[in-house]
Amino acid sequence: MKILLVGANGTIGRAVRQALSRHQVLAAGRDSGELRVDMSQPDSIRALFERTGNVDAIVSAAGLLHLGPLAEMTPEQFRIGLDSKLMGQVNLVLIGQRFLNAGGSITLTSGMGNEIPLRHGSNACAVNAAIEGFARGAAVELAAGLRINAVCPSVLQESWEPLQSYFPGFEAVPAARVARAYQRSVEGVETGQVFKVW
Amino acid sequence: MKILLVGANGTIGRAVRQALSRHQVLAAGRDSGELRVDMSQPDSIRALFERTGNVDAIVSAAGLLHLGPLAEMTPEQFRIGLDSKLMGQVNLVLIGQRFLNAGGSITLTSGMGNEIPLRHGSNACAVNAAIEGFARGAAVELAAGLRINAVCPSVLQESWEPLQSYFPGFEAVPAARVARAYQRSVEGVETGQVFKVW
Ligand SMILES: NC(=O)c1ccc[n+]([C@@H]2O[C@H](COP(=O)([O-])OP(=O)(O)OC[C@H]3O[C@@H](n4cnc5c(N)ncnc54)[C@H](OP(=O)(O)O)[C@@H]3O)[C@@H](O)[C@H]2O)c1
Ligand SMILES: NC(=O)c1ccc[n+]([C@@H]2O[C@H](COP(=O)([O-])OP(=O)(O)OC[C@H]3O[C@@H](n4cnc5c(N)ncnc54)[C@H](OP(=O)(O)O)[C@@H]3O)[C@@H](O)[C@H]2O)c1
Repeated sequence: MKILLVGANGTIGRAVRQALSRHQVLAAGRDSGELRVDMSQPDSIRALFERTGNVDAIVSAAGLLHLGPLAEMTPEQFRIGLDSKLMGQVNLVLIGQRFLNAGGSITLTSGMGNEIPLRHGSNACAVNAAIEGFARGAAVELAAGLRINAVCPSVLQESWEPLQSYFPGFEAVPAARVARAYQRSVEGVETGQVFKVW
Repeated sequence: MKILLVGANGTIGRAVRQALSRHQVLAAGRDSGELRVDMSQPDSIRALFERTGNVDAIVSAAGLLHLGPLAEMTPEQFRIGLDSKLMGQVNLVLIGQRFLNAGGSITLTSGMGNEIPLRHGSNACAVNAAIEGFARGAAVELAAGLRINAVCPSVLQESWEPLQSYFPGFEAVPAARVARAYQRSVEGVETGQVFKVW
């Protein structure tokens, strides 16, 4: 398969690359890698697909959130997660659906928050829940044979150091285990699912 | 209680006004009613609260979504729901939390989509899921004693005519029944909950 991986140089992206290494993986990033894209900008995504042509799978392991106390959060801060992680991945689907080969799939990344509230996590909760709702909603609307899922990882062992204060008592998961959920989405048959890795 | 109700002249808002009629309800709308506010604009919300002063409850029954096929949806269309229904209600919380009296509450409106995909509903699914995730996330972060919930109504009997094609075989619910969920949120003790009215 020819797979476009956005966020390929991130903590999750590197592990996903490894898990999908028997395929042709096109590695995209915002400021690193051979293919550059800012997924919050629709024109940047269009330019990317004009370079890659059609693909068999689109995988996103990218997007920023705002973590911070609700009492001080400004609308502008809340928009960080909406514009980057949510709208960025939505843009990738809206535009990318036209560049998928028959039988192709899209895999997005959410994260904890839909079911579990996190400290300083109101933006993460909203954005991650939205991505999962969107994946379920888009699954019944994509052209016949195309699939879409979301991967919802707990905090990674590799990210424990900076993120541990948000996850007291949570079990961190190894990136390699998280990467298997992306493989399941890309190589499997399921659609409209959220693969929790907790 | 002194209650600010945004969307007071809408289909749901009118029923909520009825259900909360033993309280002092300040009726706000974008283009109708005595108090005018565009909740997608933070400055407009700030101006509203400067007029009302502190309140005991903030209730939102407002916000637009974009319904349409995924295959044709543009990023700009998807942003309608993000800017209006999601960010509008988030703005109301971020700004309104400072104008709540002790023991006060906030009640937001989501809708189907978090669990159930709807025809032409990828924007609704994302936005409604985000509102519910946000309410759960904000509940653990609001100042002590303050509460927040979301009401998730099925399609209303009063809205059946325009909306029925999205809800084949669904049971429509009367606005008066939906309004009880808002009363439960405002007068009750629960927080971080989603009250489904299906
Ligand atoms: N790490 C965790 O514990 C964890 C847990 C649950 C969920 N997640 C989610 O998983 C995703 C990836 O996390 P991560 O820890 O792997 O992040 P990371 O190490 O910071 O990597 C993110 C990657 O995404 C790229 N990127 C960021 N913004 C982009 C944009 N607008 N357009 C295109 N590419 C963009 C970056 O590219 P450049 O390097 O070129 O800038 C970077 O390679 C995030 O959405 C995060 O919320 C992470
Ligand atoms: N009706 C249903 O079957 C149903 C089911 C589930 C969920 N919902 C949700 O419930 C909410 C209300 O639905 P509804 O059917 O009652 O809608 P509606 O009859 O159209 O009423 C919406 C009200 O919100 C106000 N409003 C719209 N945008 C606003 C903004 N930016 N700032 C402030 N006020 C704004 C409008 O004020 P003006 O009149 O002054 O313009 C209007 O009174 C919507 O978010 C909808 O998605 C509805």
